[in-house]
Amino acid sequence: MTGAATAGIRAPRFAERLARARAAAGAAGLDALLIGVGPELRYLAGYAALPLERLTLLVVPAAPGSPLTLIAPRLEATPARSCPAAATGAVTVATWEETEDPMALVASVLATATGRAADSLSAVAVSDGMRAAFVLSLQGALPVARFSLASAVLRGLRMRKDSDEVALLREAAHAADRVVEAIAHGPLVGRTEADVAREVRDRLVAEGHEHAEFWIVASGPNSASPHHDAGDRVIAAGEPVVIDIGGQMGGYGSDITRTIWVDGGDPALGPDADFARLYEVLRDAQAAATAAVRPGVAAEAIDAVARDAITAAGFGPNFIHRTGHGIGLEGHEDPYIVAGNAEPLETAMAFSVEPGIYLEGRFGARIEDTVVCGPDGPDVLNELTRELLVVRG
Amino acid sequence: MTGAATAGIRAPRFAERLARARAAAGAAGLDALLIGVGPELRYLAGYAALPLERLTLLVVPAAPGSPLTLIAPRLEATPARSCPAAATGAVTVATWEETEDPMALVASVLATATGRAADSLSAVAVSDGMRAAFVLSLQGALPVARFSLASAVLRGLRMRKDSDEVALLREAAHAADRVVEAIAHGPLVGRTEADVAREVRDRLVAEGHEHAEFWIVASGPNSASPHHDAGDRVIAAGEPVVIDIGGQMGGYGSDITRTIWVDGGDPALGPDADFARLYEVLRDAQAAATAAVRPGVAAEAIDAVARDAITAAGFGPNFIHRTGHGIGLEGHEDPYIVAGNAEPLETAMAFSVEPGIYLEGRFGARIEDTVVCGPDGPDVLNELTRELLVVRG
Repeated sequence: MTGAATAGIRAPRFAERLARARAAAGAAGLDALLIGVGPELRYLAGYAALPLERLTLLVVPAAPGSPLTLIAPRLEATPARSCPAAATGAVTVATWEETEDPMALVASVLATATGRAADSLSAVAVSDGMRAAFVLSLQGALPVARFSLASAVLRGLRMRKDSDEVALLREAAHAADRVVEAIAHGPLVGRTEADVAREVRDRLVAEGHEHAEFWIVASGPNSASPHHDAGDRVIAAGEPVVIDIGGQMGGYGSDITRTIWVDGGDPALGPDADFARLYEVLRDAQAAATAAVRPGVAAEAIDAVARDAITAAGFGPNFIHRTGHGIGLEGHEDPYIVAGNAEPLETAMAFSVEPGIYLEGRFGARIEDTVVCGPDGPDVLNELTRELLVVRG
Repeated sequence: MTGAATAGIRAPRFAERLARARAAAGAAGLDALLIGVGPELRYLAGYAALPLERLTLLVVPAAPGSPLTLIAPRLEATPARSCPAAATGAVTVATWEETEDPMALVASVLATATGRAADSLSAVAVSDGMRAAFVLSLQGALPVARFSLASAVLRGLRMRKDSDEVALLREAAHAADRVVEAIAHGPLVGRTEADVAREVRDRLVAEGHEHAEFWIVASGPNSASPHHDAGDRVIAAGEPVVIDIGGQMGGYGSDITRTIWVDGGDPALGPDADFARLYEVLRDAQAAATAAVRPGVAAEAIDAVARDAITAAGFGPNFIHRTGHGIGLEGHEDPYIVAGNAEPLETAMAFSVEPGIYLEGRFGARIEDTVVCGPDGPDVLNELTRELLVVRG
């Protein structure tokens, strides 16, 4: 959880990414990027730092050739110095002492890097997930600077995955496939959602995930709530279960949803005609949206393909979320596959395609794959069938 | 992970906490508290919401009697409405649609609650862990408001645990005790740190934790790095292993550190004289610091007791972190047991007491308990021995 190098990403990638990031920051008119603990730090430095209340901050000044500095609490000196960007000399680590004010160090690092007093800097961007406590402190230390979000300059870099990243995403997807397949072998009848969720967590780790991140197990009427928390409800024969699970492998996310029907071995408790029709509409909408993926197609057009198909079948008001989200070092990142996002897809963008149909109080279903936009069409990372999985026990 | 009510905290607590929070906000001259997803939301509303990129925000206007509103994405309507504060009617849930700008809803909720236009509000406080993306958006929506941190008004409330909270902390501590005890039964020789860490995670969950949060297993020279990440190093006989683990039960944290010596069954590979002396100094320092806990003693005085004892023995420069941190819904929270924190301890404050001594390149040790300040002295929640644990296998 702390200090680990991003497995599977080759060390020279980080210097390349830092060079591109500072160029993008300069082009955006920024003095510097200020990157706190989180996916941006992992992306730029390979540093999966602990999200402490103590400041860790990567300072990326826009000026070419100026020093790149990773500010870290002294307590974290060892993991900070071991991250690939520091170990390869691309960034220098500067530490602050337990009783010191880290903002003084930030100001001095910025002054050295920019050749200007920190309180005269005019524009900086902070990482999107930076804690408010650090944002307000930085605003105090840089009183005239306009603050914006680093995602504005980093999203273009992070959206386009390199081959190391796609390989990790594929490995994670295959591992998650195997977990859903194992769950769909049953038994499920008589078990609580929480018990199945525990099995999901154990299996994700057993299949090589560093850790499980989410484990939605939504049975019966709970399947109509997209983000249902696995609870004490006991799964019975004659109902659907939505399984939406994922975690990280080498820092990169898996995220798969399959809908299971539990008939308990009794064909009379198979899906009723309403559910069967709903599922067929959903499966075809998900397939059509996936098939529409190719470079140049707007992200929102993928959403529209799924939504139009579902709306045409009369379920429009029951598809209450966007079709997908980017996936990489974050479980949800750019590009978002949603109405209003006219950005064209490009080769090597990675995202989920996951329409759902929810009949509140009755049942719902969702199908989700992680998809990479290939040069000629979709590269679907998940290989598990998208047909309704029927569990006999 | 989402939407679960805080187990063990009785529902009426939330209305009480909200009333105290709004009174404190008013006393601090704030128009409102703006609480994003995180421990503050769980504390005030019992809502353990998913940390999404979609805005969830509890608006707590200072004006007595004004409406308390939980803003949530429509997708999260069900878990938002099920949280104890909403279920008991203490707060009203307002949802925003997938393609809507949630800041417009924030502005309208604030205007209704305060009777003033949002762009005329003068002072708000945001939760400390709020994402920078939301902070900057809120600053845009409330252009003349001075932004400060909600911890300034909430820390006084959250530091003093109620009986429900202490009961959960105690339960979590006992569960973590059992995990360390099981690990100290061995075997350890020949296993990697990562393998032991996996066992720690499994056992924390098996002992009732919702999830494991950290699992430091630092063997041999790694024990000299306080936040070492469990890695591929194979544990050998004749060396120490620092085990620092914890997770959440009912939302409240466990956090225990014990140092183990692995002799592999060969007394000749027992602790050498240097380590034995270091451990004795540490054990006595930790005991003395714990014994000093009582109402009215400054937090920094507890740190000084541990530090003075360690310094007197010549290890001052090797104790490179503070003595402790508060513990509750967050693993690290107020009060911090650190030089410079002159705040007096009060009854029902909960924190760690965890001095350590680290000889870089050789070895280190740390001992940590979770301690509640009782009316007459320390209430040590962990019950596992603080003597050096020797593992034979």
